[in-house]
Amino acid sequence: MKHLLSVSDLTPETALELLDEANRFEQALVGREVRKLPTLRGRTIMTVFYENSTRTRVSFEVAGKWMSADVINVGISASSVSKGESLRDTAMTLHAAGADALVVRHPASGAPAQIANWTRGPDGTGPAVINAGDGTHEHPTQALLDAYTLRQRLGEIAGRRVVIVGDVLHSRVARSNAQLLAMLGAEVVLVAPPTLLPVGIDSWPVTVGHSLEAELPAADAVMMLRVQAERMNGSFFPSAREYAISYGLNEKRMRMLPDHAVVLHPGPMVRGMEIGFSVADSPRSTVLQQVTNGVHIRMAVLFRLLIGVDDSGEAA
Amino acid sequence: MKHLLSVSDLTPETALELLDEANRFEQALVGREVRKLPTLRGRTIMTVFYENSTRTRVSFEVAGKWMSADVINVGISASSVSKGESLRDTAMTLHAAGADALVVRHPASGAPAQIANWTRGPDGTGPAVINAGDGTHEHPTQALLDAYTLRQRLGEIAGRRVVIVGDVLHSRVARSNAQLLAMLGAEVVLVAPPTLLPVGIDSWPVTVGHSLEAELPAADAVMMLRVQAERMNGSFFPSAREYAISYGLNEKRMRMLPDHAVVLHPGPMVRGMEIGFSVADSPRSTVLQQVTNGVHIRMAVLFRLLIGVDDSGEAA
Amino acid sequence: MKHLLSVSDLTPETALELLDEANRFEQALVGREVRKLPTLRGRTIMTVFYENSTRTRVSFEVAGKWMSADVINVGISASSVSKGESLRDTAMTLHAAGADALVVRHPASGAPAQIANWTRGPDGTGPAVINAGDGTHEHPTQALLDAYTLRQRLGEIAGRRVVIVGDVLHSRVARSNAQLLAMLGAEVVLVAPPTLLPVGIDSWPVTVGHSLEAELPAADAVMMLRVQAERMNGSFFPSAREYAISYGLNEKRMRMLPDHAVVLHPGPMVRGMEIGFSVADSPRSTVLQQVTNGVHIRMAVLFRLLIGVDDSGEAA
Repeated sequence: MKHLLSVSDLTPETALELLDEANRFEQALVGREVRKLPTLRGRTIMTVFYENSTRTRVSFEVAGKWMSADVINVGISASSVSKGESLRDTAMTLHAAGADALVVRHPASGAPAQIANWTRGPDGTGPAVINAGDGTHEHPTQALLDAYTLRQRLGEIAGRRVVIVGDVLHSRVARSNAQLLAMLGAEVVLVAPPTLLPVGIDSWPVTVGHSLEAELPAADAVMMLRVQAERMNGSFFPSAREYAISYGLNEKRMRMLPDHAVVLHPGPMVRGMEIGFSVADSPRSTVLQQVTNGVHIRMAVLFRLLIGVDDSGEAA
Repeated sequence: MKHLLSVSDLTPETALELLDEANRFEQALVGREVRKLPTLRGRTIMTVFYENSTRTRVSFEVAGKWMSADVINVGISASSVSKGESLRDTAMTLHAAGADALVVRHPASGAPAQIANWTRGPDGTGPAVINAGDGTHEHPTQALLDAYTLRQRLGEIAGRRVVIVGDVLHSRVARSNAQLLAMLGAEVVLVAPPTLLPVGIDSWPVTVGHSLEAELPAADAVMMLRVQAERMNGSFFPSAREYAISYGLNEKRMRMLPDHAVVLHPGPMVRGMEIGFSVADSPRSTVLQQVTNGVHIRMAVLFRLLIGVDDSGEAA
Repeated sequence: MKHLLSVSDLTPETALELLDEANRFEQALVGREVRKLPTLRGRTIMTVFYENSTRTRVSFEVAGKWMSADVINVGISASSVSKGESLRDTAMTLHAAGADALVVRHPASGAPAQIANWTRGPDGTGPAVINAGDGTHEHPTQALLDAYTLRQRLGEIAGRRVVIVGDVLHSRVARSNAQLLAMLGAEVVLVAPPTLLPVGIDSWPVTVGHSLEAELPAADAVMMLRVQAERMNGSFFPSAREYAISYGLNEKRMRMLPDHAVVLHPGPMVRGMEIGFSVADSPRSTVLQQVTNGVHIRMAVLFRLLIGVDDSGEAA
């Protein structure tokens, strides 16, 4: 594996290896006062964010620094894009300036894949490119950290029923999770307003429900998506308020879940909208565990892409 | 001491221990070409600034890096706040992402204390929280570095007379300094326009004067506050110009000070307003010494909160 | 050499020593998986950028980190300037906060030189100041990396004919390159619209041509400048389009060059304007090599200023 651009870059085997690797990092670090490994000393990781994201950028920066990499943040504002340099030239420049890995967030779907193509040399060399969220397309490290969290909480992923709720149309989190969870043997159900389901949903490895309450009693996990309220306050259904009423996970609905079921949210949460105040803080909620797991997953991904594994599946 | 949220978290003993610790760091570093200690290797410090502050953010970043900590800057713009995540969730997220210490600047008084409460686990664990300036409330590391500077220049703090001049109402620097200096035995005099004195000033451990010139001959130190001109150009007294005339420290006024007296300013200075051009550069001025001391004080505070001391008062 | 403010701080000897030093860094690092030298451990480098520049800032940050320095980015926005602190006080503050080197980009010509003067102590000490681009004045590390690239590609610089093309009036790159290349024995020809040649061009060590096509057959290298389109879309000649027609390097013009000649561009490129799409990607183009060389040149400059050389010209 040279890049992580999409869940489709993973096989069930490599995905599970990454979860195991993340677990090894977690064991090596959690509860330690000194969290520093020499693993990536002398490697240069650049975070290249064309959209703001405190959460994801910080997670990658922590992951890199805990492995002793040099981490360089390249925040690219709309204003500097207007200077006229193309995305391709920016990516080539950062590679030429020494990046071993480019962690890319971009509002355009497919931008990280383009960057991987552009920066690949004739001999196949080039920086590792990690998609940290591209448009409405994918966010594969989010899917991996969610899978890792589900495995921690439910024991295994295969055979579990995961209900993903909300604005699926605009959600790269939903897209990556549906693919990865199905690949790992989970049963995935999407619950969304009909106006917020993507065209072509029939080809997804999921079933679609339209009533949240109908799906809750059989769910092992519910994954709430962020309300992108800026898309919902126009004249079309649903308004943000209608959305919360039909698709928000409140206390009453949470009680319809089986006892063992958990609630995921990728953050940032808009409490009172898609998730109730008390639900977010309940023992079922994995929100903060997901954040912590995110660091270990990103360590595993960076390690895998920059150091690799030998044929036995062990790290080289 | 788990956090440093307010000067009231300090006792005279712990305050003096921090000054002594800062002095040990200064001795270990000043004049050295290689300024790097292994003290905080593997600890993760996040600066979380909801207001711009080059000066304070850089000071903490230098302090952390000179002790080999991983320092991660989290600048939070108004625009990302509007995404809807609460301050509580942001703080919890940064803690879950691995922060051992959160250095917080926020326009709302009390925000760092809230963060300390929110991130404290049921077992009392949680990140160390340092208030790097909250609203008009406090800025305790500024008070510590000012006390350290006064001790360097005047030999001791107890018994010295310190005159704090300017917009006390809006100044977290004044608030923290008045408390700390009084705690350490100094006599504190505030000189401010009556309209810029806070309600409840009677309960402060200070005396209030209204004439700067009357206070100068008996002062051991004068601490000038920044003119927050944006608050003074309305229709109310004083205008920025009236302020400078009555409360600015010009050359003539500086000559009214005793020979040994010093002039402090927390920066950024507006020369020609609250402080004369030549006054800021005179040998009495401690402005740059305060900046240098700030790094050592912040090293001492980070060290104390992250590594601690044993019962003897020596660092563990 | 205490600072690098202008090409005039260099002699032919020191310039060539820096190219040789850059070459030693390149040899030590290129093709290595672990790019990390202990050279500047415990030294503190601050990048102080009053203008955005992803490219130059990242290059200095990589250079510093690969030599184990602490690198602190101080981005100064227009809004924080408006708080009223002078450039002098900001620079003095950063020095007092521990900077061993200040890497300064500023829209005002001469700002880095001012900073070097202001921060020089009475005993001659003070931080090393590196001009990373000031107004329309100079960009000396760009000139050094261009010279390094030319030496790599052409074998030597002395006696080569370099044609610099475009908006010379506003270009600090042109100004620094013309001086350095002439100092190293190259023949420099400027080709620019008459309205975009600076007053006083007669005193430059260059000749001036007005026809790009006339200069190409005898050129060993062509250095294209960025079209600053924001300056060219008014009512005066040339418009951006007229500029591209007369001064753009397209495929047809590139074929007029001798076989061995190379094409430089400092980036960011506006493809289709000053440089054709295929020209930028042709084997003659050194654009990415310039970026890579920039890191090694900045390592050499930082090393020279912070560690120095002994009398023999060898690094101390």
